Amino acid sequence: MKTPVTVLGLGAMGTALARAFLAAGHPTTVWNRTAGRSPELDDLGVIRARSVVDAVVASPLVVVCLLDDTSVRSTLQPAASELSRRTLVNLTNGTPEQARRGLDWAAQHGVQYLDGGIMAVPVMIGGPAAFILYSGSAEAFEQHRDDLAVLGRPTYVGADAGLAALQDLALLSAMYGMFGGVAHALAMVSSEKLSPTAFTDDLLVPWLTAMLGSVTRLAKDLEYGAESGAAGSNLAMQAAAFGNFIDASEAQGVDPMVLRPIHSLLDRAVAEGHGDEDLAVLVRLLAKN
Amino acid sequence: MKTPVTVLGLGAMGTALARAFLAAGHPTTVWNRTAGRSPELDDLGVIRARSVVDAVVASPLVVVCLLDDTSVRSTLQPAASELSRRTLVNLTNGTPEQARRGLDWAAQHGVQYLDGGIMAVPVMIGGPAAFILYSGSAEAFEQHRDDLAVLGRPTYVGADAGLAALQDLALLSAMYGMFGGVAHALAMVSSEKLSPTAFTDDLLVPWLTAMLGSVTRLAKDLEYGAESGAAGSNLAMQAAAFGNFIDASEAQGVDPMVLRPIHSLLDRAVAEGHGDEDLAVLVRLLAKN
Repeated sequence: MKTPVTVLGLGAMGTALARAFLAAGHPTTVWNRTAGRSPELDDLGVIRARSVVDAVVASPLVVVCLLDDTSVRSTLQPAASELSRRTLVNLTNGTPEQARRGLDWAAQHGVQYLDGGIMAVPVMIGGPAAFILYSGSAEAFEQHRDDLAVLGRPTYVGADAGLAALQDLALLSAMYGMFGGVAHALAMVSSEKLSPTAFTDDLLVPWLTAMLGSVTRLAKDLEYGAESGAAGSNLAMQAAAFGNFIDASEAQGVDPMVLRPIHSLLDRAVAEGHGDEDLAVLVRLLAKN
Repeated sequence: MKTPVTVLGLGAMGTALARAFLAAGHPTTVWNRTAGRSPELDDLGVIRARSVVDAVVASPLVVVCLLDDTSVRSTLQPAASELSRRTLVNLTNGTPEQARRGLDWAAQHGVQYLDGGIMAVPVMIGGPAAFILYSGSAEAFEQHRDDLAVLGRPTYVGADAGLAALQDLALLSAMYGMFGGVAHALAMVSSEKLSPTAFTDDLLVPWLTAMLGSVTRLAKDLEYGAESGAAGSNLAMQAAAFGNFIDASEAQGVDPMVLRPIHSLLDRAVAEGHGDEDLAVLVRLLAKN
């Protein structure tokens, strides 16, 4: 028999998690503050618990996915003793500090704890593109790796419980930066009534794919130190050219707001004497604050 | 014999262009305001002209790559009549409006005009990853396509001379947005002394590669209209979760400056009633200004 699992919280993500466990044949118990949520799970054989305690005692593996850390703490506190010797996997969005406090709390109550960062939207759960970062108890991860694989590719990133949330937030911030730049690019292209899909397929996606090579080089420069201006386009040249983006954007009626902080960072790097260096300087400027 | 070419301007990029033409066997004449620049070209057999007029008359194909549009205009004006019936390729960084004025000027003087946007840094010129957008005279492009291929893959984007600069700027803005997000991500990871290269190779690059699928979908949504909230993570949910990025970044000592405009855009989209829609709204908000 597949490991019985419990899912606490039936928001869009919790529902997707429960559905994936059910689809894979896991006996799945759910609890939600508002009863009867996600009725489509009933056809898949879900077991609905009447209380958090009832839900927790039903399974050795308890997955919690609630609105925020405050909800997690108020929900789990009354079931602390029942969680003892079970594995608690917290997939609620949160910060590294919250994850570390979660691990401390779990340790006090004899609970095996994993904090997770879901790199997927709900519709992707259970599909090939979803992956989930886990940090915390290595033993719990090994024990439940196959169970968790039902949700998305499980990736263990360390015993420090904060590391999944940290890298989750880092990945999402990189994604939002890319989306911001892409939104600006598509606004520019739309201002001339060009086809967004032709531009994206023919130029934008190949270009960003090629520029991922520069991302790899940036990480190397950061870790091992860069040769100054090795890429042939140092920060001073980039800062000088940047005004052209801002002016041309405004001339096209496009608000350059997503570009302004990059412009400020480049100007600051030059003002602080890093004009002949490379993008790794920007990382240090952001981290220094 | 290969087509004789002239390169006006021997900054880092102009020098790279001249070197690529020389390496491919094109008789190459150069001119620079300050004489004797880039002495390494002499070993490759470069011809140095003493004036712009002398440089222009040496070749049917004249490439100009100067600091800015003002330099281009002041440099070319005295050679306008000699440029007649030749092809002028302007690879100077500029705006769509500057390119269109360039085409008008060229038409008045009987010059075949192409405006180009170089999607490469100087060290990449002549290599397999470089590509260059061209707009303007289709006839000139067809006539010199093979000559221009020496510099990087030539991509013709239309007779409207502004379209190369427009799409050049759009691609670079997308790149800078991605780099900004990546710099934030690497600052987060560095704040915990994790390895930037391990994070980048194992997680960041695969993640951004996967998210390029969302870029393609965003362009489709923009062109054909989106199903509301089709991706399962609408703007309201994203705006609500965004505070977590800002708080967690600050807790790690990382300045969230590159994320703030995205946060503002998401909040504005929700405030204006687009909470159940998708990222295409952000493009429209940027373009509306």
